Formats: sequence, C-alpha cells, structure tokens
Amino acid sequence: MKEEESNVTPWEVSGKLDYDKVIKEFGVEKISEELQKRLEKITGKNFMLDRKIFFAHRDLKWLLDEYDKGNKFFIYTGRSPSGSIHLGHLMTWQFTKFLQDAFDAELWFQFPDEEKFLFKKDLNYEDTQKYLEENMLDVIALGFNPKKTHFIIDTKHADLLYPEACKVAKKITFSMVKSSFGLNDSSNIGQIFYTSMQAVPAFLPSVIKKKNIPCLIPHAVDQDPHFRLTRDILPKLGHYKPASIQCSFLPPLTGNSGKMSSSKEDYAIYTIDSPKEVERKIKKYAFSGGKDTLEEHRRHGGNPDIDISFQYLKYMFEPDDKKLREIYESYKSGAMTSGELKQITINKINEFLKEHQKKRIASKSRIKDFIYKKD
Amino acid sequence: MKEEESNVTPWEVSGKLDYDKVIKEFGVEKISEELQKRLEKITGKNFMLDRKIFFAHRDLKWLLDEYDKGNKFFIYTGRSPSGSIHLGHLMTWQFTKFLQDAFDAELWFQFPDEEKFLFKKDLNYEDTQKYLEENMLDVIALGFNPKKTHFIIDTKHADLLYPEACKVAKKITFSMVKSSFGLNDSSNIGQIFYTSMQAVPAFLPSVIKKKNIPCLIPHAVDQDPHFRLTRDILPKLGHYKPASIQCSFLPPLTGNSGKMSSSKEDYAIYTIDSPKEVERKIKKYAFSGGKDTLEEHRRHGGNPDIDISFQYLKYMFEPDDKKLREIYESYKSGAMTSGELKQITINKINEFLKEHQKKRIASKSRIKDFIYKKD
Repeated sequence: MKEEESNVTPWEVSGKLDYDKVIKEFGVEKISEELQKRLEKITGKNFMLDRKIFFAHRDLKWLLDEYDKGNKFFIYTGRSPSGSIHLGHLMTWQFTKFLQDAFDAELWFQFPDEEKFLFKKDLNYEDTQKYLEENMLDVIALGFNPKKTHFIIDTKHADLLYPEACKVAKKITFSMVKSSFGLNDSSNIGQIFYTSMQAVPAFLPSVIKKKNIPCLIPHAVDQDPHFRLTRDILPKLGHYKPASIQCSFLPPLTGNSGKMSSSKEDYAIYTIDSPKEVERKIKKYAFSGGKDTLEEHRRHGGNPDIDISFQYLKYMFEPDDKKLREIYESYKSGAMTSGELKQITINKINEFLKEHQKKRIASKSRIKDFIYKKD
Repeated sequence: MKEEESNVTPWEVSGKLDYDKVIKEFGVEKISEELQKRLEKITGKNFMLDRKIFFAHRDLKWLLDEYDKGNKFFIYTGRSPSGSIHLGHLMTWQFTKFLQDAFDAELWFQFPDEEKFLFKKDLNYEDTQKYLEENMLDVIALGFNPKKTHFIIDTKHADLLYPEACKVAKKITFSMVKSSFGLNDSSNIGQIFYTSMQAVPAFLPSVIKKKNIPCLIPHAVDQDPHFRLTRDILPKLGHYKPASIQCSFLPPLTGNSGKMSSSKEDYAIYTIDSPKEVERKIKKYAFSGGKDTLEEHRRHGGNPDIDISFQYLKYMFEPDDKKLREIYESYKSGAMTSGELKQITINKINEFLKEHQKKRIASKSRIKDFIYKKD
C-alpha cells in the first residue's frame, strides 16, 4: 500500500486519512455550522466540536427535532476489551460524558467481550475477561453518572442480547457482511454473526421500556459500517434508526497516519503508563514538526499541523482555544522549540493521568453499580 | 428430484431413504450385534434397538469402555420449537428416557428456540415462544426424572451458552458450514452461527462441573452434520468428542419416504390430536400395503413392510415382538384386512395419547422444575 492510501474498517485503520474522502465513502454528513450552533445552544460550547474532532453525523438533526418535541434520546457507545485503554479511547468517552451531562441522558455502554476474541487469532477468552475488568475501571474513572449509566457485557447479558441479536441476524445475509466488513469464506462464524450483537444496544432500552426511544451513538468513524447496517435493519424491526456523531482518530505517536492503536504498543499512551513512561514515549516517538537543527527551527519555525505533541493538545489536553492558539503561533514562529512543546504535552498528559489513575483504582469497588441489572 | 433420490440434511429429509447409503455418506457406524449385546447387558432389551430403529452410532464402544471404568456419561438431546409435537419426535425421546433410566444418567435437554425462527421465513419470534412452552409439556409428560433432567433454552440460557458458542464458533469457518449444511451467501448470519449454539450442550455440563464428562447424543440421523462438526471442534477446546446413537425416521402417513414432519400437517399425528382426528388421519392417509379389493387381499395377502399402520406398530406402539409377528403374518397372509390393521393402530395410538394428554396437562405446573437453574 502506498503511504497516501488509507483504509478504514472496524478492524483496521491505516494510511494518511482524508476525512472528506471518508465522509464521501461512508456516506455520513459533515456537521454543518448551523447544526453545530443548534447543538451548542443546548449543550454549551465544546472544543471537540469546535475543532471538528467530532466532525460527522447521521440523523443528528432528526434527533434534535425529537428532543425539542420532548422525545428524549439515550446514548449508546462501547468498548471491545482486548488490551489496555489508551488516550484515543478516552477521547470519545470524554465527549460521551459531555453529551450525557448536557442532555441528562441515559448511557448504555456495551462491552462486547467476545468481539476481539473472535477477531484476534491469538487472544484467548480468559485474557479478554481480564481486559474487560480493567477497561471498565477506565470508563468509570471518567465520572459517568452510575444512576444513568448501564454497562452491558455481551457474554454476561447474552440472555438479553442474543434473542434480540437473532431478530437482527435474520435480516442480514452473508453477502451483506461480506461487503460491509470484508469478511470471506475463511471468516469464522462468530465473526460473521458478531455485527448483530453490536446492533442490539441501539434498541435494547426500547425493548426493555416497551416504547420506541431515539438513540445517539458517539463513535470513531471506523465503526460506521456496523451502524450503517444497523440503521438499515432496525426500522424493519419497528425501531428508530440510531443517530450518530462521529469523530476522527487521535493519531498515533508516530504521525498523522492511521489511529492510536493497541496493536503498536510503543506508539500509544495508555492510561496506566507511569509519568516516566509517558515522558519516554513522547520524547522518543512523538513525531515532531520541528526543524532538524535548533538554528533552522528558530529561523523557519516548526509545523504544528503535523506535530503530534501539538495534536494531542488540540485533540484532548488544551481545551482553551486562546492558549492553544498561543502555542500554535509560538511553535510556528520558531520561538518555541520541539523540546519545549513536548514538555508541555508531557506535563499535561501526566497531570491528567495522575488524577485518572487515582480514580481508576477507586473504581474497583464501583463496577457492580454500573453493570446493568434486570428488574 | 426422482422419487428414488433421497436428501438428508438437518432441515430437509425427502425421498425414499436408504439407510445403508446414509451410513456410508454420513460416515456413521452400524450398531453391530456385538455392540447391541454389550449395551443390552447393561440396559436390558429394547425393541427399538432390536428392530434397528436405532441403527447407527459414533463412538458408542468408547462410551461404554469409559462407563465400565466408572466414567459416567450424560445424555444430550433436544427439540427446536416450531410447531406441535408429533409421534416422530416422541419416538427419540422415549428411547432417551429408556437410556436415562438404564444408566441413571443426567439428561441435558436443549430447546434451541431461535433455530426455526432463523430458518423459517414466516415464523415469528413470539410464535416460537408459544411452541416452546407447548413442546416442553410433551417432554415432561414422558416421565423424565426432574432431578436428573435439565432444560436448556437457547434464548433464556444464552448467558451460559453464548460465551461457549463463541469458543466453538472461532474454530468454524463459513466454508465449513457451507459444505456441512448447504448454506450460501444468501443465508442469514443467524443461520450461519447457529450450529455453534447446538454444539454447546455436548460439553456444557463439563464446563459447569469443571471436569471432562463423556456425552451421549440420541438423535435422528438427519442431525448428524451438526454433531459431526461438533466432534471435530470439541477436542480442540479440551473436551471429549460426544458419542451418539442415531435412529431412522418415523415415516409420514403417506408412506416410507421422508420423515414425519410438521411441515405437512395432515401427514403427521400430533400429541394433541383428538381420537377422532387420529382415526380420520389413519383411515384417510395411512398408506396401505393391502390389495385393491378385499378378494385380492384375501387371496394374495398384504405387504406389512410398506404398510404405514404396521410401521407405527413396529416403531412405537407394539413393543411385544410376538404380537407384532402375529400381526405381520396375519396381514401378510391376507387373514387381516387393511381396515382391521388400521383399527389396531388407531386404538393403540389413541390409548397412548389419552394418557399422554392427561400427563401433558398435569405438566404445566412442573415446567419450572425442569428449567436449568444456575447455582
């Protein structure tokens, strides 16, 4: 594959991403200025919206129309356990928490603990279960409201999910999953069935509460093929099509290609990384937009748009537009060196992780409050 | 399809069945005289074995070796709810009860209440659930020991089954189910996944009791493709290959082709049929081996081997070999008319159903005693 070519599927994101191309190929809509303003009227400002990190959607206008009519929606997002949580995961969930708070919405958080087991040859079932426990801690640590947040674990709640998944599955042929996910005759039959399990939380609250409730799914754009299929099927079962709001990927340390991913361990920053580890990774791997020598840098300035330390500030760690702008200008002018920029990012990440790690440990006793219990 | 050609898959049995061909094609073993004797030493005589109604097996010798060593097995059979129970179903379960009693074995009885929903276009989920309740009554009415019999319902026990089914599914590719079940790209993804759910009860007791326990599956030979696949996979997951003992099909009223099946309502006798209904069906449809006129019949005699009323006596309703032989000879000689033979069968079936229907109604309050409860 040439470096310029990109590939975005639920299981692989590679290459330099052209989000306009993704919008066109996936058939999602860009969030217009008008729609953003309408959203902000209810939620207040959010830098992830403002900076186009959440940049695309499906049926968001319809969802807000329903909301205005008093037809409240629930939020559905999830995490497929297969490794430790990195910053790329947290980004989506921080925005999800913002939405939950702003709309006072119920959140159904799915942990499809069979997905990666089915898709990764060498991942065994027991390890997936260990990651499940670990991953739940990170979600809880972000401060979701336990009264309004329900963890749905595919294997544990299969008695709720599987019957509904069968109803979805009856409407999906192998041809459809072949074209949506690039599966083939060598795919295992668990992989083939899987998308019907991922569809269920988009209407499970409607089934439980015996009324049709709109659903909003905040997710990274690579998951869109699942929900595109889900949107085709759900009206056939008498449910609303779920709306979605989609974000781009937090880039890996190595540069603006692909996404931060657990498959390249040293190129991701995990929530359990020590301050020293964060420092080492940023200093060693974070792709720099600076010039080769200090002299050149001072003269010509750096390029913040390709600088990963700057990107992390923009995506997650410097919500203040004014401060971000100052760093941008200072780096671009050459006044700020790459070393200085990296140090700002290291400090910001470590500040955040110090708190997060405390909350994470405190979350151990709270898991049971979040796991959905049937009445 | 020519009338002589037969087709045996888990979803279709048609044509005139050549069981020797089925044995060869499926790769099962005929139950030898020696093996039958060894079995009878433990169980005592059984007319279904003696008359080769249960005629084939896989690994039965191994199972008895283990039994002799003190390694007891459990029995697994099942019923996929999609309609009322007919005599063909009862036949297998009567033999299953005989085995349970003879070996004092635990029985795990699966109700895969999603299977027919997934495979029958017009069957809806709610109707399947109604049949599930109805079907359980028939099983209970046969007198299984509730202390040793556990009903496993796919949708209700999915929290137990689905995680294990995923482990099975990871080892089965689409190519494998294509060749085993004749599925194709237009098959829905629930159908494709389904065989992994059917595999689970063959090792679920081993998972629950945390030790490897041999399994015996009594079933009609058309289900063999499921268990052949199951037998390939289970050793890869550390479990025994399940042994099986397989029966031929109770023929439909119309003659010795295919099997009694709910898809042709008037050609099957249901456990809820009234005495009048049984009489009507046998008189109207039961294929007769008699001659066209009484005079001819008296002179040349009838053919009990193709006479369906006689077959029902042989398969289910006249366990006494001596009496069966008398009827055989009498009919063959022409002394017994088709009308008389039909009347014997009608009386036998109605006698049985009168008791069965009483027990069936009394079973309503007992369903909860049979549904498996986790500790």
